[in-house]
Amino acid sequence: MLNVKLIISYEGSGFCGFELQPKQRSVRGEIEKVLLKLFKQKISIISSSRTDSGVHALHNVVNFQVKTKIPVAKIKSALNGLLPKEIRIVKVETKPKSFNARYDAKKKTYEYLIYNGDEVPPQILGKVWHVRKKLDLKAMRQAAKYLVGKHDFSSFCASRSDDKNKIRILHKLVISHSSLVIWKGNPISVIRNQLEGNGFLYKMVRNIVGTLVEVGLGRRSPSEIKQILKAKDRKKAGRCAPAPGLCLIQVSY
Amino acid sequence: MLNVKLIISYEGSGFCGFELQPKQRSVRGEIEKVLLKLFKQKISIISSSRTDSGVHALHNVVNFQVKTKIPVAKIKSALNGLLPKEIRIVKVETKPKSFNARYDAKKKTYEYLIYNGDEVPPQILGKVWHVRKKLDLKAMRQAAKYLVGKHDFSSFCASRSDDKNKIRILHKLVISHSSLVIWKGNPISVIRNQLEGNGFLYKMVRNIVGTLVEVGLGRRSPSEIKQILKAKDRKKAGRCAPAPGLCLIQVSY
Repeated sequence: MLNVKLIISYEGSGFCGFELQPKQRSVRGEIEKVLLKLFKQKISIISSSRTDSGVHALHNVVNFQVKTKIPVAKIKSALNGLLPKEIRIVKVETKPKSFNARYDAKKKTYEYLIYNGDEVPPQILGKVWHVRKKLDLKAMRQAAKYLVGKHDFSSFCASRSDDKNKIRILHKLVISHSSLVIWKGNPISVIRNQLEGNGFLYKMVRNIVGTLVEVGLGRRSPSEIKQILKAKDRKKAGRCAPAPGLCLIQVSY
Repeated sequence: MLNVKLIISYEGSGFCGFELQPKQRSVRGEIEKVLLKLFKQKISIISSSRTDSGVHALHNVVNFQVKTKIPVAKIKSALNGLLPKEIRIVKVETKPKSFNARYDAKKKTYEYLIYNGDEVPPQILGKVWHVRKKLDLKAMRQAAKYLVGKHDFSSFCASRSDDKNKIRILHKLVISHSSLVIWKGNPISVIRNQLEGNGFLYKMVRNIVGTLVEVGLGRRSPSEIKQILKAKDRKKAGRCAPAPGLCLIQVSY
């Protein structure tokens, strides 16, 4: 029996999310469909992150157990040959029997892109949150400072979460102006929110970014974050930022 | 009567091209539909470039004549409010009566992106041509040298063209390895083909890139370009590169 780890990358726009949904196209559904085709057996994958509809992944990790005679070196190109182009297998490895993509993850990095201006360039549609009114990045960075560290993030966790322990460590929250470059000599200025932590609750990144944007718009003061964390009440934090701005960048074990 | 010049930007994936096609969604169709809504009159636009299905534009130019009391300063946001998000009006100007977006264009710049590697990152699907086998850029650059200058480009012009004069000046053809950056710290290496000329025949950019790739794959020698130009015969040149790699970057007057 092999324990196979896959690093996968996907463009989330065309999927109902990572998880299966009745009559919809999901990342899990597409992967399990091709695993069935390749290995001629029903395989259930374990994933490090169950991204929502419209959320992208540069690097998500899944694993599954399989008994097969197919050489590991052949799995990657066989799966990529069967998968839709929006999902790519970046790497295939075998792991010890105990490896679990979900429970063994030690660190995750997300990036959330905001386009702060009049009109979103059509080239980056589906990859950014469009905020028209000018954001005060200084205030957002001040607010971000209160979030970094070990906290009970209940106020930033969607109510549908099944996590009982709401304590997480946010190692980094960096907000920067930066260029997105598709065509040469035509950089597009975006606001990048980079978050790194030991784990994230359901919709935690998007609830944090949504709240920071309310600070950036002057609707909340940076120091309000302290009370929001203390309240452990989702209703105290700001709106959930829209899915398309979010990308899972890295999972470390 | 006003002569209005619009600079427009669009993501071409969702359109049958710039020109109207029966029962399909075109860039012209979408723009003329909202002009009718705004000005309550049927308006025909003149465009500098009639891009094909799947081709993008960072900056295409159109103009139209209209009699209206709507202030010019209001036109941009009114049109953007009505247009689909994949088409944006970047700038609105009024021009002298004689200005013609098609016939007055002095210089055009295109960029054609190639992903040269194993698997296209899903993030750039629809914006690149996927060439798996390693390309010899040195040979491609050598071939490119023969194309720069004033030539009869008949061999690179699709037969459906209605242009009688096939002589054009190609000012620049620069082939470079370069990074495309969407998420920070994760550059994607692409091959950029930048072409600048006084005008381009129907499918000329794509026929040039398709031929250069055949040189890069070792299927043709760089010096063959001389014979191809001389032959003035489309059949002598290489394949037409696929539409999604192409973007109209700039039109100058």
